[in-house]
Amino acid sequence: MDKTKLQTLKGFRDFLPQEAERRQYVLGIIKNTFELFGFEPLETPALEYQEVLLGKYGTEADKLVYKFKDLGGRAVALRYDQTVPTARVLAQYYNRLPMPFRRYQIQPVWRAEKPQKGRFREIMQCDADIFGSASPLADAEIIALANSVFKNLGFKNFKIFINDRRILFELMNNAKIPEDLQLSVITTIDKLDRRTKEETETELIEKGLSKDTVARLFEQIDQSTPTENVTATINYSGFLGVEKDKLLFQARLARGLDYYTATIFEFKIDEYKAGSVAGGGRYDKLVEQLSGIPIAAVGIAFGVDRIIEAIDQLKLMPLQGLKSSVLVSVFDPSLAEMSAVLVQNLRENKIIAEIFPDETTKLAKQLKYADKKGIERLIVIGPDEVKKDTVVLKNLKTGRQVDVPLKNLVEEIKKGKS
Amino acid sequence: MDKTKLQTLKGFRDFLPQEAERRQYVLGIIKNTFELFGFEPLETPALEYQEVLLGKYGTEADKLVYKFKDLGGRAVALRYDQTVPTARVLAQYYNRLPMPFRRYQIQPVWRAEKPQKGRFREIMQCDADIFGSASPLADAEIIALANSVFKNLGFKNFKIFINDRRILFELMNNAKIPEDLQLSVITTIDKLDRRTKEETETELIEKGLSKDTVARLFEQIDQSTPTENVTATINYSGFLGVEKDKLLFQARLARGLDYYTATIFEFKIDEYKAGSVAGGGRYDKLVEQLSGIPIAAVGIAFGVDRIIEAIDQLKLMPLQGLKSSVLVSVFDPSLAEMSAVLVQNLRENKIIAEIFPDETTKLAKQLKYADKKGIERLIVIGPDEVKKDTVVLKNLKTGRQVDVPLKNLVEEIKKGKS
Repeated sequence: MDKTKLQTLKGFRDFLPQEAERRQYVLGIIKNTFELFGFEPLETPALEYQEVLLGKYGTEADKLVYKFKDLGGRAVALRYDQTVPTARVLAQYYNRLPMPFRRYQIQPVWRAEKPQKGRFREIMQCDADIFGSASPLADAEIIALANSVFKNLGFKNFKIFINDRRILFELMNNAKIPEDLQLSVITTIDKLDRRTKEETETELIEKGLSKDTVARLFEQIDQSTPTENVTATINYSGFLGVEKDKLLFQARLARGLDYYTATIFEFKIDEYKAGSVAGGGRYDKLVEQLSGIPIAAVGIAFGVDRIIEAIDQLKLMPLQGLKSSVLVSVFDPSLAEMSAVLVQNLRENKIIAEIFPDETTKLAKQLKYADKKGIERLIVIGPDEVKKDTVVLKNLKTGRQVDVPLKNLVEEIKKGKS
Repeated sequence: MDKTKLQTLKGFRDFLPQEAERRQYVLGIIKNTFELFGFEPLETPALEYQEVLLGKYGTEADKLVYKFKDLGGRAVALRYDQTVPTARVLAQYYNRLPMPFRRYQIQPVWRAEKPQKGRFREIMQCDADIFGSASPLADAEIIALANSVFKNLGFKNFKIFINDRRILFELMNNAKIPEDLQLSVITTIDKLDRRTKEETETELIEKGLSKDTVARLFEQIDQSTPTENVTATINYSGFLGVEKDKLLFQARLARGLDYYTATIFEFKIDEYKAGSVAGGGRYDKLVEQLSGIPIAAVGIAFGVDRIIEAIDQLKLMPLQGLKSSVLVSVFDPSLAEMSAVLVQNLRENKIIAEIFPDETTKLAKQLKYADKKGIERLIVIGPDEVKKDTVVLKNLKTGRQVDVPLKNLVEEIKKGKS
């Protein structure tokens, strides 16, 4: 292998064990919470016909889809999101699926975006949606689900901002903002929480609004009240366990995607300033556009990379180093069999354990290995120990070392004191 | 979406919830067993530079690699296996990794093979390997690991066949089989367990061996004895908990892949006749060829699709239908809030529960939904129940229906009797 090519492509990442374990921990909690709420997994292929994917995301996004001809000359493309493949599944298997259909999907997607800090070309996408219900009860189920996810991940201080897409357009009409400027204005006011009012005002004037119009717009934002739909969603969310002071109406909340039709919402961790960690909303027209079958939908997507960043910032990750808890060392080749019997016994007792897989005599090498891997305990069984039916159990965090009779070993490790 | 394209590409599969859950169950047990043995996860990108992947699998296999130019004009390719990317990782992060390095990797790979029954273009690859030890203790750890995987999946009757690649070549030399025929002869004798001795003989003669040579070959196969290496591996495996009658020396075991250098092994379920369910061996030269760094290696790959087939054949899958256990129905819109409070309470008690997310009044529709999804219990809370502080709890498997006081509901469901 050419040394210059011993690297990943830009925007792609290897996850070495420690990082892979941290990601699996987070995805595991998300997945378990999804399932507690009755959501079921769906998996779709990495490759689809280009025809299935293209023309759904908009011209700019279409350019970022990885596409090519396969060996059979078929025009194929890599999964760009999970909503379009799910629309295909809904159309293809409509009669086999329970409706409303609660599904979650955790799979990577690929986007040929310009790589930059925090932006990757291979992203773990993590979605939960309810298809086939137009009720605010479904919106509230999604909000309650995400609320539980963040609580289960250990977050205490977070807010959920909720709005209705239609409120935004109404207030812009009330403020007499020309229709052709409305989407652009939305993009600007969406940044109000990261900027001052003055900065926002300047940008809006640059975009062609008069000072008066901007003033009217801000007034409209301040005076807006929730739609019936938003009120019902907030109420149901409360009954589903979402604390009242967490869920806030925010008339200027926009969410980037064009396809939302009504309720939209965003989760923000108070202490984490790099943006929202989950967001979603209702998109009642999209599935019909994609598949020809009219199916109402509401869903949420979790930003796995940001969530992990926030977890690190708030020190919420329970794993200390790696999970392997016991290394049974090999004292010398003649005693390797004793070590093998021992490690087998620990595993039968559900203790994560490994034997150093080499008939070495060097204990230092084995200690270095344990240290590098973050293993918590080392067991040494030498000729003296064999005679006494004991082992040496060394806690590698504290350095404490004790002789333990073989018959007490499992109990001693499970107690976690030595 | 063009209706004709509402389909997956040939050789690619959707996994709808029930199937996705079955797969996750199997992969979950495999993963937990890997971790019990101290193996850690590694994840590499789906896309790599073509240069990293090509020229490693052989000319024929290289043709089956999905390859294309990305938007930046880079020659890229989709992951074809997990060994070559791991070799890149070993070379790239050598100093950061503990050695010996135990890693597992569970990710899809893509191969443009001719689609046919049981052969797919997107395959979940499931590997565990130890890098950096040439000891038979490492070989035995891999065998003991797979032995535990199959026991944990519920298999009772299976065999592990073990051989040393070098025995095969030695016995062919002893039988005076010309070197240029040896790999081809290996392919034929590898099929001895699916065919009669006579059929094998015919094929070998067709391949150019004389009747005498074939006779000598069979004699050599019968008389072969394990190498010191195989004997040591068998011994260590025993100490690591592998039952003696399961692990059998088989001189004619070949394994397809060219890159094995010594021990090879295969797992077969007695009752399942479609082939081995896991296989692997020692490949001490490959990592050096791929990455320039000499690292001994031994590993195993699990055939997820075959394992699921064998589990079905032997009815070892514990899941009955889907996992969602309780549907809280909505009696009428005015009582939806009661249902919401109830479902929230069940979830707080770790009971998988969902509310029908629509303010319907139709109970029949909700029953049909529960049935389609395989939900076990239905809760109805109507005006009479509200007055009495009870709910109706209906077991959808047995049809049995009882009135349960609200305060006893969690306990009643957890008991699992109603």
